[in-house]
Amino acid sequence: MPDSTTSVYLKSYILGDALRAEHFELSETALRPLADAEVLLETVCLSVDPYLRGCMTGMANYYVPQLDLRAPIHSLGVARVLDSRLPGYAAGELVLGSIDWSARSILSAQAISQRPVGRRTLRRLALTAQEHPSRYLGVLGITGITAFFGIVGTAKPRPGETMVVSAAAGAVGSVAGQIAKILGARVIGLTSSPEKRSVIVERLGFDAAVDYRSATLPQDLLELVPGGPDIYFDNVGGAVSQAVMSTMRHPARVVECGQISSYDDQDGGWMVDIRPIHRHGLRFEGFTPSLFSEFEPAALAQLEHWLGTGQIIALETVHHGLESLPAAMLGLFRGGNIGKTVVSLDQPATD
Amino acid sequence: MPDSTTSVYLKSYILGDALRAEHFELSETALRPLADAEVLLETVCLSVDPYLRGCMTGMANYYVPQLDLRAPIHSLGVARVLDSRLPGYAAGELVLGSIDWSARSILSAQAISQRPVGRRTLRRLALTAQEHPSRYLGVLGITGITAFFGIVGTAKPRPGETMVVSAAAGAVGSVAGQIAKILGARVIGLTSSPEKRSVIVERLGFDAAVDYRSATLPQDLLELVPGGPDIYFDNVGGAVSQAVMSTMRHPARVVECGQISSYDDQDGGWMVDIRPIHRHGLRFEGFTPSLFSEFEPAALAQLEHWLGTGQIIALETVHHGLESLPAAMLGLFRGGNIGKTVVSLDQPATD
Repeated sequence: MPDSTTSVYLKSYILGDALRAEHFELSETALRPLADAEVLLETVCLSVDPYLRGCMTGMANYYVPQLDLRAPIHSLGVARVLDSRLPGYAAGELVLGSIDWSARSILSAQAISQRPVGRRTLRRLALTAQEHPSRYLGVLGITGITAFFGIVGTAKPRPGETMVVSAAAGAVGSVAGQIAKILGARVIGLTSSPEKRSVIVERLGFDAAVDYRSATLPQDLLELVPGGPDIYFDNVGGAVSQAVMSTMRHPARVVECGQISSYDDQDGGWMVDIRPIHRHGLRFEGFTPSLFSEFEPAALAQLEHWLGTGQIIALETVHHGLESLPAAMLGLFRGGNIGKTVVSLDQPATD
Repeated sequence: MPDSTTSVYLKSYILGDALRAEHFELSETALRPLADAEVLLETVCLSVDPYLRGCMTGMANYYVPQLDLRAPIHSLGVARVLDSRLPGYAAGELVLGSIDWSARSILSAQAISQRPVGRRTLRRLALTAQEHPSRYLGVLGITGITAFFGIVGTAKPRPGETMVVSAAAGAVGSVAGQIAKILGARVIGLTSSPEKRSVIVERLGFDAAVDYRSATLPQDLLELVPGGPDIYFDNVGGAVSQAVMSTMRHPARVVECGQISSYDDQDGGWMVDIRPIHRHGLRFEGFTPSLFSEFEPAALAQLEHWLGTGQIIALETVHHGLESLPAAMLGLFRGGNIGKTVVSLDQPATD
């Protein structure tokens, strides 16, 4: 058994400032022998998500728990059991759950119970030879569940309605747009690069793509949908969202899924200028997947079905190696990713 | 016929600063003879409303038109026709419409058509001896219409639901709360003084009143409604509203009627920290009465019926004389009023 591991730590909480590479630290530590009710894991792949920024502010009153600076960062991941003294887990099995940003890690039964992901803690995965473990981080992970509850449980598009989605080539946006298409909506994606616009229209079948950096964003949208969109599914917030809301007219709804443009500035709150909501009688609705947790198994079954039929295509940006985690995280805030951002530590299994 | 008049003017647009008495100016001007298609009016009473603050910013992109600094301020009012060269209006009649903050004023047919109030321009009023003209400024004016569409068209309370209303002793809040009571809701009013708390509970029949200045506002509310309110009807915005929203849980809705706490600071927008909306899956909905204008005659008929049966009690704060208009306006921002703020220029008719 290996006797040491390398892990990624957050050096300090970062509030009101952009996250930078130097806020992270790689460090090697010894691995002690397994105690009773513990498992030794070798990390296969890790999910890199915008919500993690909220765990790095040190603000206790936030809706996500704060990271413990003395321990490695952790997020949804897949790992292989190297050794187990915990009933229910056997060496060689794959597991899915909240995994340390470490090459190897030891989890106790208590630690496992304190890190639920949705309704479940660490669970065994049985994959066929064709299945990449990363599918459980994206469409079948928090990302897919968030898009599903945001569209099916909150936005509820009706056939013929037009939905605008921001960060449309991102992890949640790309799935949210595809689900809205399945439900019969017309979908316009906002994204930054010609490459991403081509991906969402040509690969994912969105009806149109608009550059959110356009100085004439409201007019660009109104050319495509003269009465204004029926739904805006928002992952970004800030000036882009104010511009979209300025085009919307009663009855229309904004589904607030994320505010990535504000995550570096959370000491100021997630501020929205509500004048378009007031003036045009818009409905602005928030949600988190936890509000729908009773539907989680059904949602995952439906997402797995759609993946199988090809009605949902899983887009991924895969980084390799533990040391790429900080850059992968920063990339989320710079529009660097297409689809789900995953870091793979296990070249043969995920490439 | 009188040959001069006194009027209240705004001296300059005020943006990002509190409105003060010195921003207003009283000035006397000559009254020219009536031309064709004009009426000469003597003002009876004027409505003083928070939305007027939005007409005083000079910001063109706002949802209300900006005042013309060269002309007197104007708002909903009742006047007596002194002389008329406009068919449809005869000397001695009372009229309701957008009236200058002047003792006397001349309105042309063109000016009348450019100042609609809701769906109508200047219209004749036939009052019985018992009816105060000010009722057409409050419950049967923009105030009542706003409360009606906010409750009946937007909040839609169901019997047994609990609604919290801010500025509960104010013009709109006092009517909104009474309509919610008629529809079967339990109503908790937020207001500042013991006198106002007593008025809304004892005179209007609200179920409870809470001091919005309490340092333990969220706890005070949760003691009255342990699961959090179903509806928050918001007239104020700012820190009070963030505190109320922090107590609310999915499914619950915020109806955004006004943001008086931000009106002096509109260059910064009407900013709402949406984290409670996101975290607890709240629905935040805006409206303006113009979204429901097809229902305006029906709403007025219903409000008049409720006034007649005593199911709605009209609260009023009446100031006397043209020179009291600036103080009446400032009073809105200092919690000085109970119910509708009206300035009467016609002592015998309104007292």
